Amino acid sequence: MKDTLMRWKLPIICFIWQLAMIILFGVFIRYDEEANAHWNVIRRIRNITSALENDFYFRYPSFQDVHVMVFVGFGFLMTFLKRYGFGSVGFNFLIASFSIQWALLMQGWFHSLDFSDGKIKIGVESLINADFSAASVAIAFGAVIGKVSPIQLLIMSLFQVTLYAVNEFIILTVLGAKDAGGAMVIHVFGAYFGLTITRILYRTNLDQTKNESVYHSDLFAMIGTLYLWLFWPSFNSAISNHGDAQHRAVINTYCSLASSVLIAIAISSLFEKKGKIDMVHVQNATLAGGVALGTAAEMMLTPYGSLIVGVLSGAVSTLGFIYLSPLLEKYLKIQDTCGIHNLHGMPGVMGAIVGAVTAAAATEGVYGREGLIEAFGFEGRFADRTPSVQGGYQAAALCVTLLLSVGGGAVVGFILKLPFWGDPSDENCFEDEVYWKVPVDEEAPLRNVHYENNELKKPNSNGDTQQ
Amino acid sequence: MKDTLMRWKLPIICFIWQLAMIILFGVFIRYDEEANAHWNVIRRIRNITSALENDFYFRYPSFQDVHVMVFVGFGFLMTFLKRYGFGSVGFNFLIASFSIQWALLMQGWFHSLDFSDGKIKIGVESLINADFSAASVAIAFGAVIGKVSPIQLLIMSLFQVTLYAVNEFIILTVLGAKDAGGAMVIHVFGAYFGLTITRILYRTNLDQTKNESVYHSDLFAMIGTLYLWLFWPSFNSAISNHGDAQHRAVINTYCSLASSVLIAIAISSLFEKKGKIDMVHVQNATLAGGVALGTAAEMMLTPYGSLIVGVLSGAVSTLGFIYLSPLLEKYLKIQDTCGIHNLHGMPGVMGAIVGAVTAAAATEGVYGREGLIEAFGFEGRFADRTPSVQGGYQAAALCVTLLLSVGGGAVVGFILKLPFWGDPSDENCFEDEVYWKVPVDEEAPLRNVHYENNELKKPNSNGDTQQ
Amino acid sequence: MKDTLMRWKLPIICFIWQLAMIILFGVFIRYDEEANAHWNVIRRIRNITSALENDFYFRYPSFQDVHVMVFVGFGFLMTFLKRYGFGSVGFNFLIASFSIQWALLMQGWFHSLDFSDGKIKIGVESLINADFSAASVAIAFGAVIGKVSPIQLLIMSLFQVTLYAVNEFIILTVLGAKDAGGAMVIHVFGAYFGLTITRILYRTNLDQTKNESVYHSDLFAMIGTLYLWLFWPSFNSAISNHGDAQHRAVINTYCSLASSVLIAIAISSLFEKKGKIDMVHVQNATLAGGVALGTAAEMMLTPYGSLIVGVLSGAVSTLGFIYLSPLLEKYLKIQDTCGIHNLHGMPGVMGAIVGAVTAAAATEGVYGREGLIEAFGFEGRFADRTPSVQGGYQAAALCVTLLLSVGGGAVVGFILKLPFWGDPSDENCFEDEVYWKVPVDEEAPLRNVHYENNELKKPNSNGDTQQ
Repeated sequence: MKDTLMRWKLPIICFIWQLAMIILFGVFIRYDEEANAHWNVIRRIRNITSALENDFYFRYPSFQDVHVMVFVGFGFLMTFLKRYGFGSVGFNFLIASFSIQWALLMQGWFHSLDFSDGKIKIGVESLINADFSAASVAIAFGAVIGKVSPIQLLIMSLFQVTLYAVNEFIILTVLGAKDAGGAMVIHVFGAYFGLTITRILYRTNLDQTKNESVYHSDLFAMIGTLYLWLFWPSFNSAISNHGDAQHRAVINTYCSLASSVLIAIAISSLFEKKGKIDMVHVQNATLAGGVALGTAAEMMLTPYGSLIVGVLSGAVSTLGFIYLSPLLEKYLKIQDTCGIHNLHGMPGVMGAIVGAVTAAAATEGVYGREGLIEAFGFEGRFADRTPSVQGGYQAAALCVTLLLSVGGGAVVGFILKLPFWGDPSDENCFEDEVYWKVPVDEEAPLRNVHYENNELKKPNSNGDTQQ
Repeated sequence: MKDTLMRWKLPIICFIWQLAMIILFGVFIRYDEEANAHWNVIRRIRNITSALENDFYFRYPSFQDVHVMVFVGFGFLMTFLKRYGFGSVGFNFLIASFSIQWALLMQGWFHSLDFSDGKIKIGVESLINADFSAASVAIAFGAVIGKVSPIQLLIMSLFQVTLYAVNEFIILTVLGAKDAGGAMVIHVFGAYFGLTITRILYRTNLDQTKNESVYHSDLFAMIGTLYLWLFWPSFNSAISNHGDAQHRAVINTYCSLASSVLIAIAISSLFEKKGKIDMVHVQNATLAGGVALGTAAEMMLTPYGSLIVGVLSGAVSTLGFIYLSPLLEKYLKIQDTCGIHNLHGMPGVMGAIVGAVTAAAATEGVYGREGLIEAFGFEGRFADRTPSVQGGYQAAALCVTLLLSVGGGAVVGFILKLPFWGDPSDENCFEDEVYWKVPVDEEAPLRNVHYENNELKKPNSNGDTQQ
Repeated sequence: MKDTLMRWKLPIICFIWQLAMIILFGVFIRYDEEANAHWNVIRRIRNITSALENDFYFRYPSFQDVHVMVFVGFGFLMTFLKRYGFGSVGFNFLIASFSIQWALLMQGWFHSLDFSDGKIKIGVESLINADFSAASVAIAFGAVIGKVSPIQLLIMSLFQVTLYAVNEFIILTVLGAKDAGGAMVIHVFGAYFGLTITRILYRTNLDQTKNESVYHSDLFAMIGTLYLWLFWPSFNSAISNHGDAQHRAVINTYCSLASSVLIAIAISSLFEKKGKIDMVHVQNATLAGGVALGTAAEMMLTPYGSLIVGVLSGAVSTLGFIYLSPLLEKYLKIQDTCGIHNLHGMPGVMGAIVGAVTAAAATEGVYGREGLIEAFGFEGRFADRTPSVQGGYQAAALCVTLLLSVGGGAVVGFILKLPFWGDPSDENCFEDEVYWKVPVDEEAPLRNVHYENNELKKPNSNGDTQQ
């Protein structure tokens, strides 16, 4: 029997890390100009006519949508597991809350450090980027959920957010790639990082019968799916340039997502036994169109281009669930609980390629001279870039992301393999009872039926753990 | 036994229709000026000082609220059905995703076709209108839910969205009626279209014991109700004029909805057995105030006028559930699964009348000369209109809507009656198992009890359909 | 057996009160300038360049978030009760819908009465304030939920909203205290008002085994928790000054809430049996950081200051659930169903103190001369105030709030103790069946097991109440 007692380990790690956050925030983090009480003075000096010019009003509605996606969207998406609802929503809540704090520091050091005073200046855009980082962690969580302890999740978050900021710095700042909706930065990185970890944590005797849903849990999962689907246009436009870029990113994502739904359901019905639709595909593959526009959403992809991307990514994602996942588990020993390879991995890679091609195909005719410079940032160091060169850098960015995610995942995977992190035994995976105080409930008599093939709890012991 | 196998029919219709969307989008749909990369240039030429003047910032928050209403609101509202949760959320997801695409085309041809280049130019307002069209489809879905196949739903959507655009064109463009929140365009049209269809699809031996809720499913339905209720002010103001009109539409709808809640609960307790409140009324009649302000919300209705409308519509709606629905089923053979006649039909008609009266009663004293012109569009072709004349046109618009919805519903109803669309047999209505892969769950032993009086599945066959 | 029949009492009170609202709205309430059809004229006269300057665009997104918190957030947070889900969501819906109407009047008379014409002028900020008032009622509801009738709840709401406006007037207008997120006005007031009432309504033989959750109900409750947590930054910034103040309030609340999550989970695991995490703490104590920033959120608290507040309040709240609540019940006879003392009481007091200290510590160096005047309203009557004096007034405001809430709660408690309000007998507390028509559901056979020790319903009578 493994020792899954969290009494000392979990509280200590939480206390120490939170204390570290307080100290580091104290040393480094301050409000940016637009969140500072001096702003109204600055505003008048700069002759900014309206308080609305504060970036807050350009980005706050999108920020709230992204915020909902990270905590409700990803949290509830994973509640499809019949006996891991608390862990899905609760652990996602825990690691995302840590990740956003650590991300404000890591991303700040790399992107918004004010060298004049050595401080990181944060505003609403920093909050969005921190949430993006947490989204990437939530994606990786989807691969290992049910098989790891909260401590392992916190350690994974710490390393992932760190490496996320490094990767983001290399591809956006050094290579000058564009990735507003994070097809590479968020999805590809999160997916392959998580998949590498779950590969290393492979469990031979995993009881896959518990990695399943029940009727109610599938409905809870749909809450997550729908909020992800609905707010994805905000996700892909949240940090785009003001005006037409945000506007365009929303239209493209809206179209792409709509077409993914039809295709996911069509393929589900076509390949499933008796032509019945599988909720797993509705819960996941319908979102592929959002992932696949993560890079190109703000570009002049055109609405029909978006529909095509939505169709292809939705098809790849659904077929991945049906055919690829079983093969990955059988031959590569990758136990991908939520199928993130199908939802974030492949559609993310597709999104990076779509972005590279769309960038390479950009012309002055379509964007206008100014528009081209603004859309791809052909200024300063990148002033002499052409769209086709930009396309090359986009492709390079994908390669860097793949390397860092797999490499980083390998290192972290071996760290998490150490025996003292309190992970559950194979037969107790996907069981909330291991880490959560679970109420005795009306279904208990039935639920105990399941536990009879589970050393951990007998109906009676089950009873008194829960008084 | 009917043949409900979807394997070929559903995928083929989805593939073909999605392919058609791609082609038509390719030929016709482009970004509008404010979503186009040239916008910043245009902006400077026109001397628009701020990127915020982009319509995106006036409408995006309302758009997202409307988007949530269509997919989460309507989707979860219908999950009250004890064994049709997947169908409620999933089929709503499917048909709404198709409808928004088709609506962008249909509404585009009628409203935003740029004759200079023969293209439809879309922006955030187009997305809102597409969602409105999908809302109308979701309303009609509420009448037939549980009794039709996904193929029938897709066919219904295709025709309904088409006719919706025609009706919208006639009453808004030709007649110059105002209907910002769609009391007529969305609610009356959707309700009577759906009711006519369900009348034609009447089933003699429908097992109404399955058209019921369980404790949990009533809570899921409340998620839908609350999001509809909360975001209705956004729904009624989403496409109103910038500034005071949007502001006023929100205030009026907020007041109206609040009063509907008190009245719905009061009447429920007054007429229900043992004075107990019925969740059906809380889930539906509380929303009547929003529907009934669909036309007048942006007008100078005054807050107390809004309260009165909320009270009357809430009362009519609740009484409709208690007394009218059984009569409609018994004498008119209208099997209205979700009671849309009570939530959208009658309150919608009431809303159209309130709008006509409010318009007819408008005066320069209240609106100011300019305000009157702006509020009712007394410009161009309508320059010589007076409020009382406008009132007449509002009334005419209601008649047109009723005729088109019933007429169109009749035609579509007969098409859907054709024997090869894969609808379920009477005893399998309201059963997710027919079209969905349903997990074996902890309640299964109990659920099988129900199936004993159901030829389709015996506990064992039930078992292996679900492996 | 108590008479819990609502047939006449509840409908009559709803009808009369709603009628009163209509009359009072008719006499007093009008649109404010920015919601009035004359606005565009006024705008041009005042040379306001853009329709965006309408306060609607500064506040509507925050308003919608607050609106969701009051109805979905508080409503679902209380659905953790295994057999009181309808009452949690439904009664919250009822009393909040009444409270917002009554609040528009009460707050209007005190804050926005236009003495030129004796009318209350309302706009989007009035709607936010009305929702704030309803939030305070929802908090008090958390103390008495399951033990009172809807009539008692409506009476409580009437008095609470009235007293809320009085308290708000005294501390904000008379004392000139700042409390943008309502740590005092909303949380302290609501908590101690509700706790005093539940103390007076103490039940000796309350069956606490029913004041518990089941697996699904804990997940429903997490929907409430997450929406409260996610939108709290909007709650604390909704009525702050335009620009940097709103921006800053969001950043501070975001940081504070994140740290509360880590600490709540750490302490839960540290003190719970077998080191398992308790969902009660995750559902509630994670929100303490938002409450504790209710006063200081818009001040220059700095991000690390916010983290510290989040840590302390999260710790106090979790420890309160573990140690203090049982003592309060045992020695002070305070039966606090949802533990509002831990979530709103103590963190609210802490928030008021943090606000007083932060105000007292404000300097021109940090805020700038102008910024200081703007942030604390050192103008007109308060022109000669210094930060330290302001701190004193903040503290005074807390005392006033505590006195009024306890005093008012005592009076209302004794009114509610009168025998004819239809409250349930001790053994029927926390039972939806008392006031709601509850469907027979698949868990029914199991649920009846519980009812055997419950005179009210026998399986059969239970059966036919529900046909």
